[in-house]
Amino acid sequence: MLLSDVDGIHTMMIAAAKAARATIMESAFHRFEPQGVSGTVILAESHLSIHTWPEKGYAAMDFYTCGDHTAPWLACSHAAEVLEAKSVLTTEIKRGIEKSDGEFSHVVAADRDALVRSA
Amino acid sequence: MLLSDVDGIHTMMIAAAKAARATIMESAFHRFEPQGVSGTVILAESHLSIHTWPEKGYAAMDFYTCGDHTAPWLACSHAAEVLEAKSVLTTEIKRGIEKSDGEFSHVVAADRDALVRSA
Repeated sequence: MLLSDVDGIHTMMIAAAKAARATIMESAFHRFEPQGVSGTVILAESHLSIHTWPEKGYAAMDFYTCGDHTAPWLACSHAAEVLEAKSVLTTEIKRGIEKSDGEFSHVVAADRDALVRSA
Repeated sequence: MLLSDVDGIHTMMIAAAKAARATIMESAFHRFEPQGVSGTVILAESHLSIHTWPEKGYAAMDFYTCGDHTAPWLACSHAAEVLEAKSVLTTEIKRGIEKSDGEFSHVVAADRDALVRSA
């Protein structure tokens, strides 16, 4: 099963980073016993991460990018397609918003269920 | 300045993981030119991440843990203390919530400003 396959998950996340037009700097992946994979890809534009629970058919992912040239939703779509996800629940968070007083904030945008696929 | 010091940031994040009572599996850090550090620490209980913008005095961090034995807020407090943060804006997200239909969801909890420190 792909959710336990550390090499497959690693390959998927590298391809997801490329789909997002991001530049890959480093990556680290770990296979747990008896199952499950965790991994991160550090980008020039922040990072992607994944944690899988094969026994539950569940994976939690972050697609964190900066810059106008990146397309994090394409990374999400790529992962959903490779994992053959039956449903995808996403929440977008805008981070590092510089305020007039020099402080920074972040805001939670609306949830998107647009990627939900039929079984 | 600590926000540009990849070794210092790496050390801080490892200590933050320990403060959270998490188990460290892997880590990957990168120093950008002319400045800025990105890094992740993969835990047995998910991951920590950091991205710094030294020129803005800003860092974005995630403290993502699983299990009742971990204390992610202690990791956050440790990082805020080491970075001598003047303000810390946090949002907690509960992830991987299993629903009765077998699907998973996540919810955004209230923001916390409890860690804001006076300059």
